[in-house]
Amino acid sequence: MNTATSLEEILERWPKLGARERLEMFRAIPREQADDFFLELSSRDQLDLLAALPEGEHRIWLRLLAPDDAADLIQLAPPGQRQNWLKQLDETAQREVSALLAYKEDEAGGLMSPRFARLRPEMTVDEAISYLRRQAGQLETIYYAYALDDGQHLLGVVSFRDLFSADKSKTVRDVMRTQIVTTTEDADQEAVAKLFSLHHLLAIPVVDSEKCMKGIVTVDDIVDVVQEEASEDIQKLGGMEALDAPYLQIGFWRMVQKRAGWLAVLFVGEMLTATAMGYYEQEIARAVVLALFVPLIISSGGNSGSQATTLVIRAMAVGEVKLRDWWRIIRREFATGLVLGSVLATIGLTRILVWQAIWKPYGEDYVIIGLTVACSLIGVVLFGTIAGSMLPFILRRFGLDPASASAPFVATLVDVSGLVIYFTIASIFLRGTLL
Amino acid sequence: MNTATSLEEILERWPKLGARERLEMFRAIPREQADDFFLELSSRDQLDLLAALPEGEHRIWLRLLAPDDAADLIQLAPPGQRQNWLKQLDETAQREVSALLAYKEDEAGGLMSPRFARLRPEMTVDEAISYLRRQAGQLETIYYAYALDDGQHLLGVVSFRDLFSADKSKTVRDVMRTQIVTTTEDADQEAVAKLFSLHHLLAIPVVDSEKCMKGIVTVDDIVDVVQEEASEDIQKLGGMEALDAPYLQIGFWRMVQKRAGWLAVLFVGEMLTATAMGYYEQEIARAVVLALFVPLIISSGGNSGSQATTLVIRAMAVGEVKLRDWWRIIRREFATGLVLGSVLATIGLTRILVWQAIWKPYGEDYVIIGLTVACSLIGVVLFGTIAGSMLPFILRRFGLDPASASAPFVATLVDVSGLVIYFTIASIFLRGTLL
Repeated sequence: MNTATSLEEILERWPKLGARERLEMFRAIPREQADDFFLELSSRDQLDLLAALPEGEHRIWLRLLAPDDAADLIQLAPPGQRQNWLKQLDETAQREVSALLAYKEDEAGGLMSPRFARLRPEMTVDEAISYLRRQAGQLETIYYAYALDDGQHLLGVVSFRDLFSADKSKTVRDVMRTQIVTTTEDADQEAVAKLFSLHHLLAIPVVDSEKCMKGIVTVDDIVDVVQEEASEDIQKLGGMEALDAPYLQIGFWRMVQKRAGWLAVLFVGEMLTATAMGYYEQEIARAVVLALFVPLIISSGGNSGSQATTLVIRAMAVGEVKLRDWWRIIRREFATGLVLGSVLATIGLTRILVWQAIWKPYGEDYVIIGLTVACSLIGVVLFGTIAGSMLPFILRRFGLDPASASAPFVATLVDVSGLVIYFTIASIFLRGTLL
Repeated sequence: MNTATSLEEILERWPKLGARERLEMFRAIPREQADDFFLELSSRDQLDLLAALPEGEHRIWLRLLAPDDAADLIQLAPPGQRQNWLKQLDETAQREVSALLAYKEDEAGGLMSPRFARLRPEMTVDEAISYLRRQAGQLETIYYAYALDDGQHLLGVVSFRDLFSADKSKTVRDVMRTQIVTTTEDADQEAVAKLFSLHHLLAIPVVDSEKCMKGIVTVDDIVDVVQEEASEDIQKLGGMEALDAPYLQIGFWRMVQKRAGWLAVLFVGEMLTATAMGYYEQEIARAVVLALFVPLIISSGGNSGSQATTLVIRAMAVGEVKLRDWWRIIRREFATGLVLGSVLATIGLTRILVWQAIWKPYGEDYVIIGLTVACSLIGVVLFGTIAGSMLPFILRRFGLDPASASAPFVATLVDVSGLVIYFTIASIFLRGTLL
């Protein structure tokens, strides 16, 4: 049996298996590979698996975990059971994990490992290497080592590679770099991910406000962070609350709840369209032709708004656009909206003229109807583009998540205002003819 | 001057600077930090900067780059100029980079570095360590070393850490792991990112179909890959082509082009709503009240479709959902659509009854109007949910990118069918009363 492949297959199928199937599969893995397999599961899956195993075994598996991973697992347990899980660890680990549990899961503090390689600046390169060699088994990574003073203040960093290619008789102080990219315990994990992406590092040290070193965040944890943050943003952009579990694993009612909330809010907002339409009921009764173009016009506003809001939200998330850039964006989107609106207006006008030439569905006032639709399209697309690009700024300005300015949210906003724009232009253009 | 901070500031401001300002800033950086700074720029920014520097300097900067980074840069240059850039490299690098240029940018081959640490399985641990020590300067990473046979076949991998804590007299074969996660040269970069996320590795070896080792992909490059892929998906979900440069850097007309294409396609699709509405013009003329609820009903379908398509596309992108899961998803989304539709129907019916009780806007047939709206909502939301969840499967089945089933695309599809559902239900319910 090619075990490497089959372990990977089990990992792939894992999300779709029930608790009993999982337990059976896990029992079937040879012991020497079961450790690796366990370590590759997500914290949620590890916890579920442990819960299915007899209590006597908890200790063995839990002690395989690095302190940051143990903390992640324990954080997922119901609050009342956390102490029990914690007690399964050895004393040092209990202390480390308790400290980590104090941080929020999505902060640098919640991602960091306290088991980093510490050096004294006056050590020689040779001493440092043999020290690291002895410690290798207990450390999260030996690829960066950190020079600290007596007060645990971070003085410098040496990559293992630098240490390794340096003259053995030099001191750590001679070879260490002192310009260090650091982060703080309460830094948001998105900000930490940006640092990794910008500097291409394998690990970043976490320091407190006194510059005392607390731990390191390693890049392998960041890949997951980036994926999770993107999933959250994408789900919010789709007009719902972010799910807190994979789609196929989350409970049915929990998922419905995450979707129904926003859908109901959008529905209530969209009710204003019925009110707006009711306000123009007389106009529609006199010129039913006006009603025909309502979906076309409001959806164009929604689509252009969706594009603008998506672009701005993503650019904010990856740090390309900051709050202070709003004026640049509004000018750019104003020009974009004008161009896009004109493109759609041209297509729309052509469509009406061609249809009229062939089937004559719009009566003798077709030119003025065509112009009403064209001008409304420009107005609505322009409004959609500006509203879509500015909403994320407004949300962020008030400390809310810009990603809540989802495509459906912007579309709803633009639907109501689009109707007002359309019927206003219509009542100006068509007064004396159709109205 | 705190240079660490100020280099970071320059990096942050870089995207917003013009070519001349960039050159001036770059010149102002002390030479010993300019190297680091140059290496932290994106390939696109490196190329732009080099193009602004006198030709005599190209060689110095280009030779700072690892082969995979040099290949990325050269790939961005206009095809006619690539040979010139290539010639600036030393001979070994020219060979390596030419080999890498044969791969597509978004494949594992395009991400990999050929400068990995090679060991022979019969070497002792001690020999291996001192060999790595000598090579450290030329390698992409020394943290994993790969044991190859004479034919360059990959036999095993040792982490430097394992080597370091092992008995010096053992051989590489004794300590190496033989169950290795590998990828192939033509593997899509998204698939490679999934491997990193699943196995928490720092590097993954790339092998060809004969299991000969070609290079390694390192995790620090994957953080960027994950960000880029998420950005592309998010932009497609917003109803446009993915931008190929950051929002603030891409040219105005290029961005308009990326947005206008899809917007025009959606607009032409949405024109069918005018056709559908025209088909029901008589009904609208007789019962204008029907027109009032058109935006409310079709947008509800669009919003629920947007949720479903977003969820499924993201679950596919991160590998939670496969093509073969379509039947599970359709059952789940059918149930979801029924529940969500019923929620909105209840709110909608309540709204109509309350408005009628207060302002009496809907005439004496308000109950039947309310039921028409409620039933249409259930039908439209159900249709939107199923269409939104299945479209990504259909696209993928035909080899297209599921992310093209954007929220606006689904909304457009649902708008047209939503109108048909609404007016069909209305003509059944209202026949003999309003119609």
